[in-house]
Amino acid sequence: MNDDSDDQLTLGIDLGGTKVGIALVDLDDRVVASHRRVTDSEGGPERVVQDIVAATREILDRAGAPAGRLGVGVAGQVDSRHGVVRSTPNLIGWRDFPLARSLEDALDLPVAVTNDVNATTLAEHAVGAGRGADDLLVVFVGTGVGGGIVAGGRLVDGAGGYAGEIGHMTIVVDGRPCSCRNRGCLEAYVGGWAIAERAREAVDEAPEAGEVLLDAAGGRNRITAATVDRVADSGDPLARRLVEETGHFLGAGLVGAVHALNPARVVLGGGVIEGMPDLVAAAAAHVRERAMEVFLEDLEIVPTTLGADAGVIGAAVYARRAGRVGAGKGAP
Amino acid sequence: MNDDSDDQLTLGIDLGGTKVGIALVDLDDRVVASHRRVTDSEGGPERVVQDIVAATREILDRAGAPAGRLGVGVAGQVDSRHGVVRSTPNLIGWRDFPLARSLEDALDLPVAVTNDVNATTLAEHAVGAGRGADDLLVVFVGTGVGGGIVAGGRLVDGAGGYAGEIGHMTIVVDGRPCSCRNRGCLEAYVGGWAIAERAREAVDEAPEAGEVLLDAAGGRNRITAATVDRVADSGDPLARRLVEETGHFLGAGLVGAVHALNPARVVLGGGVIEGMPDLVAAAAAHVRERAMEVFLEDLEIVPTTLGADAGVIGAAVYARRAGRVGAGKGAP
Repeated sequence: MNDDSDDQLTLGIDLGGTKVGIALVDLDDRVVASHRRVTDSEGGPERVVQDIVAATREILDRAGAPAGRLGVGVAGQVDSRHGVVRSTPNLIGWRDFPLARSLEDALDLPVAVTNDVNATTLAEHAVGAGRGADDLLVVFVGTGVGGGIVAGGRLVDGAGGYAGEIGHMTIVVDGRPCSCRNRGCLEAYVGGWAIAERAREAVDEAPEAGEVLLDAAGGRNRITAATVDRVADSGDPLARRLVEETGHFLGAGLVGAVHALNPARVVLGGGVIEGMPDLVAAAAAHVRERAMEVFLEDLEIVPTTLGADAGVIGAAVYARRAGRVGAGKGAP
Repeated sequence: MNDDSDDQLTLGIDLGGTKVGIALVDLDDRVVASHRRVTDSEGGPERVVQDIVAATREILDRAGAPAGRLGVGVAGQVDSRHGVVRSTPNLIGWRDFPLARSLEDALDLPVAVTNDVNATTLAEHAVGAGRGADDLLVVFVGTGVGGGIVAGGRLVDGAGGYAGEIGHMTIVVDGRPCSCRNRGCLEAYVGGWAIAERAREAVDEAPEAGEVLLDAAGGRNRITAATVDRVADSGDPLARRLVEETGHFLGAGLVGAVHALNPARVVLGGGVIEGMPDLVAAAAAHVRERAMEVFLEDLEIVPTTLGADAGVIGAAVYARRAGRVGAGKGAP
């Protein structure tokens, strides 16, 4: 392994269900070179590792420069202390796969692995909407709800590397069943799947009021969060109410997270936020009304600013902050 | 100020509403000397500072050794970055009082100030039930519900020093009014005042079932959490139901905090837990049933083990971890 790796470029990899993004990132967190390739997830983890190794060699050849270390952000549960992917919703056969060790063996580079949301949180902190906020909470509201926490300038990893599951904070004791084992999680109210479920139930309760939603979706079971978003934009009262309630639930979850963590900034991103950008202001208004005043003094709630490169940049930042750490030796 | 203060004893002060506890603590977090004195809180902050200064000189004279730094834990909202007590529920005239600067001027020692719960959290981490757990959540359930977070071995202070208000995480959207501005906080269900309120409401709903509680308390409005605790111990079904529900609510809050923070250990303390020790097992069972499995792998939920010295030890640990930091220069 390299000894002067701290001065060098860092490789960042964003590993999703169907694509691998890879980038060479410099010390100022700028992308020097990047590309994206489809990965054959059906071939299992060994095949994906081969794809990553090939992509890594290609980008290093093209750049004509060595890399000092490599970071990977994986969509799934990652034991970042040991560089092990515990499980992923989208990749087949990835139960307890030692990704850091496999890549280190193939590439002779120190490798650090984290989950994609933690990586993106670090990118927000380094170069995005979280820049300058050393106490930062990032919440991504998509189909699911994920999050990442920076405290005192450092990523909060937790004992196993799983910290930041803001979407699975209980906001209604014994409330709606969640995708996890709990009931009443924030995700069970504001995740894309939950918005769709709430909309279907609202339509069942009031079919007349739900006519516009039903027509736009082409049937009850085809209603999605995107339908709600589109129909709310056209002014439909039921869809607007659903969006307002979503802002209220999101705000209630954020009040709790703000009280626990006292962040200087909350960054909101993800597909649901992109589709319903008013949620940022609605949730912020709820927090201003409900959180204790000293928590509001330094608090901003803002939308994310990073685009598709956030995952690869964040993975590189993670690897660099992990320092001279290989698999099993720690995390930032 | 001292230059070799890192090798020396540290002073820890626990400032409550009516008493000041003070101790000299060595590098192994052992109490070398301590005493407690009543403070005249009606004389305002200047008078309390005089009391602290006198107590400090007395204990240093008695020990015949100098102290390298001083830490104070205050029951109230503390801006630890600037060493300023923002407000306290029990001390009169303490709005935005610069406690660190006042003590530094009088004692010529570096002073760090935090709130009493953060101090006690550090004591649990250093020498108590949280020892060895670098990802630690401490929750005190008393009249109110407070908490402290250690992540990666460091206290999570937050942007203003207010982090750790686990008691004010929303667990029921638009639920019971809380002592803060929010509704549905964990404290509004499991804090001592809330248990008493819930008990009074239960008695109103079912006066016959509530007879034992009413008799034991000597009237509806005299029911407290301690009454519930005592009557539940005697086997009364209504009181037992109230305790069980309290465990359920506490568990729901802990599931959320565990998902957010992925601690290796949760330490539960405070008067309500001491009175109803079964709450620890009840809340732990709820977490085991509801939290995602990877979060359970390394998780223990245990009662606190520290006694009355926790506050002074924790204040000293806080000061030492703050390093060479006076008012306004940072926190551990």
